[in-house]
Amino acid sequence: MLAVFGHTNPDTDAITSALVYAHLLARQGVEARAYRLGELNFETPFVLREAGLEAPELLPELPAGTAVALVDHNESAQSVSNLNELTVVRVVDHHKLGDLTTAQPAFLRFEPVGCTATILLKLHREAGLAVERPDARLMLSAILSDTLHFRSPTTTPEDREAVAFLAPIAEVEDVEAYALAMFAAKSDLGNTPAETLLRMDYKVFPFGDPAQPQTVQNWGLGVIETTNPGYVLGRQAELLTAMDHARAEDGLNGVLLSVVDILNETNVTLVLSATEEKVLREAFGVAVEDRRAHLGGRISRKKQIVPALEAYFAPES
Amino acid sequence: MLAVFGHTNPDTDAITSALVYAHLLARQGVEARAYRLGELNFETPFVLREAGLEAPELLPELPAGTAVALVDHNESAQSVSNLNELTVVRVVDHHKLGDLTTAQPAFLRFEPVGCTATILLKLHREAGLAVERPDARLMLSAILSDTLHFRSPTTTPEDREAVAFLAPIAEVEDVEAYALAMFAAKSDLGNTPAETLLRMDYKVFPFGDPAQPQTVQNWGLGVIETTNPGYVLGRQAELLTAMDHARAEDGLNGVLLSVVDILNETNVTLVLSATEEKVLREAFGVAVEDRRAHLGGRISRKKQIVPALEAYFAPES
Repeated sequence: MLAVFGHTNPDTDAITSALVYAHLLARQGVEARAYRLGELNFETPFVLREAGLEAPELLPELPAGTAVALVDHNESAQSVSNLNELTVVRVVDHHKLGDLTTAQPAFLRFEPVGCTATILLKLHREAGLAVERPDARLMLSAILSDTLHFRSPTTTPEDREAVAFLAPIAEVEDVEAYALAMFAAKSDLGNTPAETLLRMDYKVFPFGDPAQPQTVQNWGLGVIETTNPGYVLGRQAELLTAMDHARAEDGLNGVLLSVVDILNETNVTLVLSATEEKVLREAFGVAVEDRRAHLGGRISRKKQIVPALEAYFAPES
Repeated sequence: MLAVFGHTNPDTDAITSALVYAHLLARQGVEARAYRLGELNFETPFVLREAGLEAPELLPELPAGTAVALVDHNESAQSVSNLNELTVVRVVDHHKLGDLTTAQPAFLRFEPVGCTATILLKLHREAGLAVERPDARLMLSAILSDTLHFRSPTTTPEDREAVAFLAPIAEVEDVEAYALAMFAAKSDLGNTPAETLLRMDYKVFPFGDPAQPQTVQNWGLGVIETTNPGYVLGRQAELLTAMDHARAEDGLNGVLLSVVDILNETNVTLVLSATEEKVLREAFGVAVEDRRAHLGGRISRKKQIVPALEAYFAPES
């Protein structure tokens, strides 16, 4: 039984891609089961409810040598803690290739598109399998979620085509209205503790050159995508405290939390200390005021934040 | 213009896959050009002549940041020397994933099949493009070469299906006769210097855990696939001298040269020194006599030699 899972702090794409890929593999005769590596965010339960599906179970501790399939991630820092003891036999992902290696030849399918679900749709087509309604709903939701309904610069024509193809199968008549309802669910943060808000969509990235360990810095990069940034920024003090704790707990060099206004496509990033302020100033050329940096339209961590930090931390050659 | 190339010491798959993938990309609107990273072996000129094509040019020095596509390899030790300065945007490969990383999301297509060409045929089908006759001949030849006409344990049903599909397009009426002619060309080694014979199909593999540098050993693994092993083994003394030089020049821990009898599917490996003898005895449980180890039916470096050495050199956890 192949365990299929997305990254820690799962977003909608991480959860839905595990479900869809496990189902696709099963239809192709590969026994597979979807799992999750953490608690759901506020958007994913809405999506699962609309699709009429349950959330996958939390991944149990897997014995060394267990065969696994990764979706929507490949870096060990974003995966199960004993990944290096497991046997990665399949990966479907749309991120840059990090420190993954495989002991044997494997199935790897990476494409620079906006969402893993866009690749999963291609896999259905290539296998000559009709997309079933719940899978269509999951993939459509993941694409709208990852691309912020095509607002993100990660969006590609293939993501748009995938949504157009999936909407009738998913029985979503008004994609715009569905996306807004999904974003509203995601923004309904209620009394969620600040620690939880920070960790909801949070990834640790190693920067610098691993071959020169003295150049390596590990940064925690959180994003809160919301239609109600005022509410999140109103909790700035609590969030900064949570960021301070995260930096200490995870032994990080720095922590950033970007509050992304989905509808207006702007990014206000909270600045914990002089360390983060220096990096934001030098890597992005932005000023910090009241512990906030206005990063303008840089709303994609993958395409706009991480590459700038990678270039900034790259050792001079 | 995207530069497309296979590994150093190119075999038939490395050369033909660069040609076929560059042509496929061009048909899809991506400007691409095939190159090679070294001299051709004795089999590939036969294949190119049969396909009516010229060999690709030697890859010139590429400026930092140049976009490249790798075929039939992904590890830096088997690629162009300044790979870490280049931008890898596409990879099509059937080997295990090594130390490759990408700065941005990229197209990666890895499948555990017997030959890169088998994946390239799928890419044609997925793109809805008819395979042209010269490409069919190149892909068919590469599959027969990499799988030793289905004798290698790396062979999958997809490789067999690909050959059955390609043969009529390539206008190869008798696949068996064509494979034998190809292997005869490969075995016609004439007065080739021993240094050249050693390096013809030769790859350097790092074993151990890179995170524990004191465990890492670099081994050079050469293979000579031939229908005339007697001729090669008759030159044992010269070959051992060449192996001794290679170990010194490349700063390696050990060097092995496997003489594979294609038709009888056996492997006699030349043993340079007590270092190699110890490893062969402990990793494969074979005795060494007259500086030769009989590895029986272990004819695949990828599937039978490298995994055993990886397991042997893996640090105890």
